[in-house]
Amino acid sequence: MKVFLCRGATEDLQPQATMHTSLVVSRMSWGLLFNGLLVSVVAALLWEYSKLREHATVLEEELHMTQRSQEFTQTQIDYHRALQALHEDGTRMVCSSKMHTDRICRFDYLCYCTEGDEFVFFHSNASVMLPNLGSRRFQPALLDMSSVEDHNTQYFNFLELPTAALKFLSKPVFVPDVTFIFNRFNPDNIMHVFHDDLLPAFYTMKFYSDLEESARLLFMEGWGEGPHFDLYRLLSSKQPLLKEQLKDFGKLICFTKSYVGVSKMTTWYQYGFVQPQGPKANILVSGNEIRQFSKAFMVKMNVTRFAEVEKTSRNAGDESEKDEYIVVFSRSTTRLMLNEAELIIALAQEFKMKVLKVSLEEQSFPSIVQVISGASILVSMHGAQLITSLFLPRGAIVVELFPFAINPEQYAPYKTLATLPGMDLHYFSWRNTKEENTVTHPDRPWEQGGITHLEKQEQERILSSQEVSRHLCCRNPEWLFRIYQDTLIDIPSLLDVVREGMKTRLSFNKSKPANKIHPGKVREPQCQTSVQATDKAQLIISWKIPWNLKYLKVKEVNYEVWIQEQGENTYMPYIIQQQNFTFSENIKPFITYLVWVRCIFNNNLLGPFADVLVCKT
Amino acid sequence: MKVFLCRGATEDLQPQATMHTSLVVSRMSWGLLFNGLLVSVVAALLWEYSKLREHATVLEEELHMTQRSQEFTQTQIDYHRALQALHEDGTRMVCSSKMHTDRICRFDYLCYCTEGDEFVFFHSNASVMLPNLGSRRFQPALLDMSSVEDHNTQYFNFLELPTAALKFLSKPVFVPDVTFIFNRFNPDNIMHVFHDDLLPAFYTMKFYSDLEESARLLFMEGWGEGPHFDLYRLLSSKQPLLKEQLKDFGKLICFTKSYVGVSKMTTWYQYGFVQPQGPKANILVSGNEIRQFSKAFMVKMNVTRFAEVEKTSRNAGDESEKDEYIVVFSRSTTRLMLNEAELIIALAQEFKMKVLKVSLEEQSFPSIVQVISGASILVSMHGAQLITSLFLPRGAIVVELFPFAINPEQYAPYKTLATLPGMDLHYFSWRNTKEENTVTHPDRPWEQGGITHLEKQEQERILSSQEVSRHLCCRNPEWLFRIYQDTLIDIPSLLDVVREGMKTRLSFNKSKPANKIHPGKVREPQCQTSVQATDKAQLIISWKIPWNLKYLKVKEVNYEVWIQEQGENTYMPYIIQQQNFTFSENIKPFITYLVWVRCIFNNNLLGPFADVLVCKT
Repeated sequence: MKVFLCRGATEDLQPQATMHTSLVVSRMSWGLLFNGLLVSVVAALLWEYSKLREHATVLEEELHMTQRSQEFTQTQIDYHRALQALHEDGTRMVCSSKMHTDRICRFDYLCYCTEGDEFVFFHSNASVMLPNLGSRRFQPALLDMSSVEDHNTQYFNFLELPTAALKFLSKPVFVPDVTFIFNRFNPDNIMHVFHDDLLPAFYTMKFYSDLEESARLLFMEGWGEGPHFDLYRLLSSKQPLLKEQLKDFGKLICFTKSYVGVSKMTTWYQYGFVQPQGPKANILVSGNEIRQFSKAFMVKMNVTRFAEVEKTSRNAGDESEKDEYIVVFSRSTTRLMLNEAELIIALAQEFKMKVLKVSLEEQSFPSIVQVISGASILVSMHGAQLITSLFLPRGAIVVELFPFAINPEQYAPYKTLATLPGMDLHYFSWRNTKEENTVTHPDRPWEQGGITHLEKQEQERILSSQEVSRHLCCRNPEWLFRIYQDTLIDIPSLLDVVREGMKTRLSFNKSKPANKIHPGKVREPQCQTSVQATDKAQLIISWKIPWNLKYLKVKEVNYEVWIQEQGENTYMPYIIQQQNFTFSENIKPFITYLVWVRCIFNNNLLGPFADVLVCKT
Repeated sequence: MKVFLCRGATEDLQPQATMHTSLVVSRMSWGLLFNGLLVSVVAALLWEYSKLREHATVLEEELHMTQRSQEFTQTQIDYHRALQALHEDGTRMVCSSKMHTDRICRFDYLCYCTEGDEFVFFHSNASVMLPNLGSRRFQPALLDMSSVEDHNTQYFNFLELPTAALKFLSKPVFVPDVTFIFNRFNPDNIMHVFHDDLLPAFYTMKFYSDLEESARLLFMEGWGEGPHFDLYRLLSSKQPLLKEQLKDFGKLICFTKSYVGVSKMTTWYQYGFVQPQGPKANILVSGNEIRQFSKAFMVKMNVTRFAEVEKTSRNAGDESEKDEYIVVFSRSTTRLMLNEAELIIALAQEFKMKVLKVSLEEQSFPSIVQVISGASILVSMHGAQLITSLFLPRGAIVVELFPFAINPEQYAPYKTLATLPGMDLHYFSWRNTKEENTVTHPDRPWEQGGITHLEKQEQERILSSQEVSRHLCCRNPEWLFRIYQDTLIDIPSLLDVVREGMKTRLSFNKSKPANKIHPGKVREPQCQTSVQATDKAQLIISWKIPWNLKYLKVKEVNYEVWIQEQGENTYMPYIIQQQNFTFSENIKPFITYLVWVRCIFNNNLLGPFADVLVCKT
């Protein structure tokens, strides 16, 4: 690595110009013998010549760089103007959020130096850096480049330079597109592709209007395209760029407009970097948003659902319709179902349905989505392919199979997905409890679950263990050993699970889709008080129904009333069906009570409290 | 309030249509006596007529509503298409951040019902709500509508309705502009105007590309224009709207695109709602961003600085230049400086400078900014007018005066502003310590500091107190009593403070503006180890300078090296000037050490640590 990174040929211009000047000076001394005027003319001419030459070089270069920039993105750019803006205004950054894990930044003229592998912020009198964190920018970083929270391989930061440094650097190539820059987390694994990248990117692009239509995506994690690049292509009409491609375009690349970072709003699972894996503590996405994504992606993949009518909208008696079918998702290299064929036959016989087998290794992804999107039941070993359940129709059943010694509760990305409110899937797990039905692979490489690299004693411990205990990601050998086992499925016990699933689904499909709308505030809450005796008083609380109730079909409407004696820490909660109630229990005379009222639909949809009532007895 | 809010005339259409149908049915029974065919024709005609009539009504109404919407915003709108989109897609919401206090939401088709004073989210099969919080949306709110954090009068939420309810509601008026919706916090007070509203709105609009150019601002706090509305007008080329104006346009108003909430990134002060007032715990703004804002606002106000050259760029000896002047900011109703004229003469004599008096009551705001923007010294009583110091040139002195019994440290919005890094102002406070120089107003109304409404004992306590102790906002009578005192300025002691300020400024102006750029990572850190004896070893650590150092003039460059024995919790920090060092103190053989290296500019600008070195002795 050289000391001057991103350094270009332009910096040699300065010394050249100086040489001409010194030539002029030496002629000046000879000039004392000749006509002084002539020398001045020559000097002036030489000076002009040198200036013009410099100017021509700049022009040639700008022309060249304009072509470069346009090759790069097929978008028109006024190179000269962009360069001037960079020189005069430097970089402008405005970000969201005070926490780095929640932050996305918008940049004008963010640059990237390919040789140094560093983003560069150019300071000028007009540059903006908001938040301006000082050294806190490194503690630990400005933001996360991937949707995985606070992962130390995924941090974003930049190097600062004054715009004055530009004259010593390579002329920049400009990217005129609005560029959406982030890290894919693990683009080789289809589960990670959807959960960490596609869903987050899709909704990030919905949040920023200039990303929504025609963003240029740039993946900076440094990986190659990977096996699922066609899916990433669906996010935008423009071809996504990889970090490695930047090198082909120049030493210094400046993005006229860009966003760095990706929303974490849609993720539902944490992979166990700081605590054992499991659902995120604060899930912010519901099945509805997942389904909007799936719908949009199916359109982009040119997939239409097998059945236009979704399962839930069918008549209750129709669950055995001819076109219902079961999908068995097959894995062909690891974590096999050893009696897959037998299982398929058993499922078909038991449920009198067609059973389709799909596999990532044998079919195109869109054709798999096409099949999944019409399935009534999806049966699969635990594994990334189960992310396709986000394309299942409402009301479908997911049956996830786990190898021996693996506790389904501890590995729940697909259970969490299926059970998101509004996802409307029925999730069931099956677990191989018979050690004689498992086939282990102790001799494989460690990353496929081999354990021969471990000490004898540890190997024996692992072999005799009946359940993998909770552990952190990502290299626990016992976990890898067990999760890569092949399984001879105990078909009767699996059929029991599926049968149970069918029953639940039947009763679910009979009921109408539930209202998911929350009550508004109760209106005009009022309080009347009366004193009956020196130790007896009452509060008469009344209110009107929430405004939106009139427009909804709600099975059960209740009201919750909280009564608190002013100055006390506790309150008495009541559930009431009518719109008024007289409270006399524990109500004392000459006391101020605070009263809150809210509406509850179907016992689980809580509305907001109306403004507090202050009632004096 | 009616039960059906936002209900319009349209709902009467349904019964009308039904009436026509029943007419048809009754004629059908007569028709048995006549020609069946004729009756069918009549029935069909009547049916068609009724349909057409309904259609015409809809058309008339749509035409009317289109006109309404266009009157409203002077922007073209395809009313029919907007209505269809609302019916089919419902509302779409995507927000930033997992914390409500950090959140801004972007909406398509957010509606507002003027009668119910509620925003409405319409649910359809295509609506999106991200985050989808369920009832957590009310705990306590979806987001803050103003830049003041988590204030319970400033919460935003919406009522949910199915799109099916639209047919029972007034036809919506559409606002086709991109609308930026938030609450002004206290638009009557110029300090609040800048700190809570203008700066936050300015930078929020820089973050969202579609707000940047032509947003329609809508202030929902419910106040009238207020005395500073001209300043709000500067934020966008479009006239801002007030909540009260919405009523004039219709019962149901739908914003085709809108953002709700405003960034808190630029605020530096908290007003004491949960703890006594003071600087925010985590200030994210620097003087640079404040100055970019001021610059932009001065352009919008058509103000050019008195002196084009800023104070800092002057030669050191020039501090007594003819065009230097002092500004005394006068308050004309409360918190008076009783000997203002005398003070002005004393300042002029002492510093041999022109002294200009400005007052919000007597001059236009732009003309005040014009004066402030060229001032060398600003002298003012504590108060909202001091927010104008954000227009002072770099290097200027701010002298803030406090009445008797008020501790300047406890009321520091202007000190905090002036001392933000990069604001480059010199802040000094002066405090009246002589009780005989204060004039109290115990008989005024409580909100102007009167105390006669209090109990005698409390009045006496307040009158005898020598300093107001820390308190919460906003109605502490002792604080109000003291802060509204008038003061006879003790001129000699004030001149001492100003003189002190002049000295500091002089020494500051002599030094060149400091580099504010942080070091990059040190490059190529390396570690060599050697073992000298069974108990002696050494680490030879070397690295190369950060890449950006070559382009900067930095007075002092140091490197910090942290050495940690693997597995230990503590580390040894070293500060080193050269680019390599041999560590032998406390270095033991056959131990693994972890070593971190970072660069420090001028003892205060810390760079990031390079990747950790693992060194085995």
